[in-house]
Amino acid sequence: MLCNNIGVNSAGHLTFAGLDTTALAAKHQTPLYLMDEDRIRANCRLYKEAMSASFGEGSYPLYASKAASFKHMYEIMAEEGMSIDLVSSGEICTAVKAHFPMERSFFHGNSKTDFDISYAMDCGVGHFVIDNLTELEAVSAEAQRRGICQKILLRLTPGIDPHTYEAVATGKVDSKFGLAIETGQAEEIVRRALELPALELLGYHCHVGSQVFDEDGTVYLDAADIFLRFSAEMQARYGFFPAVLNLGGGFGVRYTEDDPHVDIPGNIRTIANHMRARCAALNIPMPAVLMEPGRSIVADAGMTLYTVGTVKEVPGYKNYVSIDGGMTDNPRYALYGSRYTVLSATAPLSEADLPCDLVGRCCESGDIIQPAIALPKPQRGDIIAVCTTGAYNYSMASNYNRIPRPSVVMLRGGEDFVAVRRESLEDLVRNDL
Amino acid sequence: MLCNNIGVNSAGHLTFAGLDTTALAAKHQTPLYLMDEDRIRANCRLYKEAMSASFGEGSYPLYASKAASFKHMYEIMAEEGMSIDLVSSGEICTAVKAHFPMERSFFHGNSKTDFDISYAMDCGVGHFVIDNLTELEAVSAEAQRRGICQKILLRLTPGIDPHTYEAVATGKVDSKFGLAIETGQAEEIVRRALELPALELLGYHCHVGSQVFDEDGTVYLDAADIFLRFSAEMQARYGFFPAVLNLGGGFGVRYTEDDPHVDIPGNIRTIANHMRARCAALNIPMPAVLMEPGRSIVADAGMTLYTVGTVKEVPGYKNYVSIDGGMTDNPRYALYGSRYTVLSATAPLSEADLPCDLVGRCCESGDIIQPAIALPKPQRGDIIAVCTTGAYNYSMASNYNRIPRPSVVMLRGGEDFVAVRRESLEDLVRNDL
Repeated sequence: MLCNNIGVNSAGHLTFAGLDTTALAAKHQTPLYLMDEDRIRANCRLYKEAMSASFGEGSYPLYASKAASFKHMYEIMAEEGMSIDLVSSGEICTAVKAHFPMERSFFHGNSKTDFDISYAMDCGVGHFVIDNLTELEAVSAEAQRRGICQKILLRLTPGIDPHTYEAVATGKVDSKFGLAIETGQAEEIVRRALELPALELLGYHCHVGSQVFDEDGTVYLDAADIFLRFSAEMQARYGFFPAVLNLGGGFGVRYTEDDPHVDIPGNIRTIANHMRARCAALNIPMPAVLMEPGRSIVADAGMTLYTVGTVKEVPGYKNYVSIDGGMTDNPRYALYGSRYTVLSATAPLSEADLPCDLVGRCCESGDIIQPAIALPKPQRGDIIAVCTTGAYNYSMASNYNRIPRPSVVMLRGGEDFVAVRRESLEDLVRNDL
Repeated sequence: MLCNNIGVNSAGHLTFAGLDTTALAAKHQTPLYLMDEDRIRANCRLYKEAMSASFGEGSYPLYASKAASFKHMYEIMAEEGMSIDLVSSGEICTAVKAHFPMERSFFHGNSKTDFDISYAMDCGVGHFVIDNLTELEAVSAEAQRRGICQKILLRLTPGIDPHTYEAVATGKVDSKFGLAIETGQAEEIVRRALELPALELLGYHCHVGSQVFDEDGTVYLDAADIFLRFSAEMQARYGFFPAVLNLGGGFGVRYTEDDPHVDIPGNIRTIANHMRARCAALNIPMPAVLMEPGRSIVADAGMTLYTVGTVKEVPGYKNYVSIDGGMTDNPRYALYGSRYTVLSATAPLSEADLPCDLVGRCCESGDIIQPAIALPKPQRGDIIAVCTTGAYNYSMASNYNRIPRPSVVMLRGGEDFVAVRRESLEDLVRNDL
C-alpha cells in the first residue's frame, strides 16, 4: 500500500488508520474527508525531534496551516508543542478559537491589509513575516501606535528555482513573495527594519518551494549558503546577525507509488551539517533554524471517500466513473494536474479491470479527480477512496455548483469523531439576502 | 471601454452601471463583487426575444445558474420569466428560497445522488435532464414510488468538438456527460426511457460547449443537424418525436478588447433558419428549441473591486501589484489561464505606465489574477477593477488560506444593495467543532 496507515480488513474492505472505510462512509456519509490524527502527531514529532537533534535547541518546525486549517488542527498543534505559520486573519481567528498560544505563531502573506495587521496584533501574533517595504512601514506604524515592540522576520528571496511545479516555486528572484538579495532590495529592507524602534528583527525567512524530494534537496543547501553569506555581509555592514533563519518548507510526500520515499531526518541532518561547516568557514555563529512543513505534516494523514454515481463505458473511447464529489472538494487535478492514488474501498483486493477516469459531479468537463487509472469495475453505491488528500483538499474546497463541503472526520486511537461538520443546504444560503 | 456599462465620471473615477466604483469600494469594502442587475435583465430579454422571434412560441432560454447562483439571481430570473438550469441540490435549495416557480427548472448533472433525485422531486423540479442509464432507472424508480410522472430530457452527445478550451468542451463522444449517438448508447436510452411509465420523455439535450464565438457558430448548426437526423430516425423506429430540443449554451462574452462582439440575435436567427430548412428536408416538424446561456447572461454584468496592498518592482525582472483578493474569489486564471481586462478604478484615465502582474494575497505563486498587464502605477489603498467577472467568479470562490468570500452588491437603476453578505471570520469557523 502507498502508506502504512492504509490496509485491508478481514471483510475485504479498505481500512484507514485501522478503521473500515466503508463503515465510516455509511456512518458519516460521503463525500468524506478522513484525517488520521495519530499520523499527524507522528509527523509533527518526526520534524520536531529531527530539527532539535540536528540543529539544536531553539530550532523547530512551524506547521504551515494553510495546508489544512480548522480548529481541531490547531488544538493538535498546541498539544504537540508545534509553532504555526498563519497567512490570513481567518487562520488567525481559527487558531485563537482553538486557544493556540499565539506567541508561537508566525504571520505570513504578501499582501496583508491594514485590518490584518491590526487584528493580528489584537490576537497577539508572535511574529510577522514581513514581505516588503510598504508592509514594513505599515506594521511599524501600527506597533508604534500601540506602544509595542513587534517581533519580525523579513521574507527574502535567494534566487533559486526549486525545479518543482511552477505554481509552488517561490524562491526565484522573479516572485510575488519577498525581496531579492540579488537586486539589493533585501539589504534595503534590512537597513530600514533596523531603524524602526517598534520592530524587533529576529531574522530572515526564505521559501524555496514545497514538495521537495531528496534529489532536489540541494535547494535547501543552496538557500542556506546564500542566506549565511548574506547574514555575514549584513553583520559586517550593520552589526546585525539573525537569531533565526527560516528555511520555509517542506519535503515531498508520496501521492503515488512512483514517488520516492523522503528521508526527512536524514535531509535535515545534511542541511545542519552543511550549515555548520559554512558558518565555521564564514566565521559566524550558527543561527537557530526554522522550517515550515505543511503538506508533509498532513497529506498522508488524509483520505477522501466518495460514493459512485455511475459507470459510463464509451466503446472505443474511454470509461468514466462518476462520484458524488469532485473539483469542489479537491481542485488539485484541475489546478495542477496533480497525481493521486485511487482505490476501491468496497473491494480493494479485486482485480482493477476497468481502465477509467475518475470524474466529479460538477457540470464542467475539467472536473476530474484522476484520469487514466484502473479500478475493479464499480457499481452505483460503491465507495471509492482517494489517498493522500490531507493537504490542500479541505483547505481549497469550494461551493462551486452550490455543492456543500464535506465533513472532516478525525481518526484517533481507533475512534472516529467529527472535527468539521458537513455543510448543510441551509449553510449555502445563510448569507443570501 | 470593454463594455458600455463601464465609464469614467467627472471626478476621474471608474464607474460601473453609472456608479462611482471607488465610492462603492469605500461603502462596501473590498474585495467586492459588483453585479449590474439592469444588464442581467437586458441580457435575459435579448435571449428571450431573439429565441421567441426566431424559433417561435415554446422556445426559450434557460439561465444556466451555475454561472452565478445566489438567491437574488433566481428572483431576477423569476421576474424576467426565465427558466433555469440547476445542477445540484444546493442550487435547487437556493431557487426554492427565492420562490422560483420550480416547474420552469431543469435539473442537470452527470452524477445525481439518490438524495438529489428525491430532494428535486420534493421541490417540484419541472424537468430532469437524464445523463445515463443508471440515473434513468433511479429517477424512474423514485417517480414510480411517488406515483408521479416525471418530465425528462435525455442528455446526448453529438460528437462535436467545439474548439473551445478543453475543460469546457462537452459535446465530444469522449465526454463524462451524456450518451453518444455514434456508439448506439443514445438510441438505447431513448428506447428504455419510452418503456418507463413514470417518465415522460420531452426531448433531447446536447451541449457543445460554452464561450462560442461567431466563427465557431457552426457547432450549433452541426449539432442541430445531428439531432434532427437522430430525431427522425427515432421517430421512424419508435414513433417518438421530441417536443423540445435543448441546444445547451451559450455564446461567447468579451473578456478583453481582443475578443470579438457576438451578434446573439443574428446567430439565433441563423440557427433557426438552418433548422427549419433541415426539418423540411427531413419531412419532420420543427421542435421547440431551448438554449442555456449562463456566462453570456451574467459575465459582463460583473466587476470585481480590490484594494492594492503593495507594488513590488523587481528590477530586471517584473513588477507585481498585490491586492486583497485573488484566486479565492477568482480562480479562473489559475484554472484556465483566463484573460481579463484590468483597470485602475482610482485613476482610469492616467497613463498605464507600469507593466505588471496583478497577483493575489494567497500564499501560492500561482495566485495570479492576470499577468502581463499595464496599470497607472498604483499606491497601497488604490482601487483596482477587474472586468467581466459576473460568471464563474462568485460561484467558484473558495476559502483557501481561510479568506472570507466577498459580498455581492447589486447595482440597479443607480442604486446599490447587498445581495450576498460578506463572510465574516465567525462564518469561517461556524462548522468547526
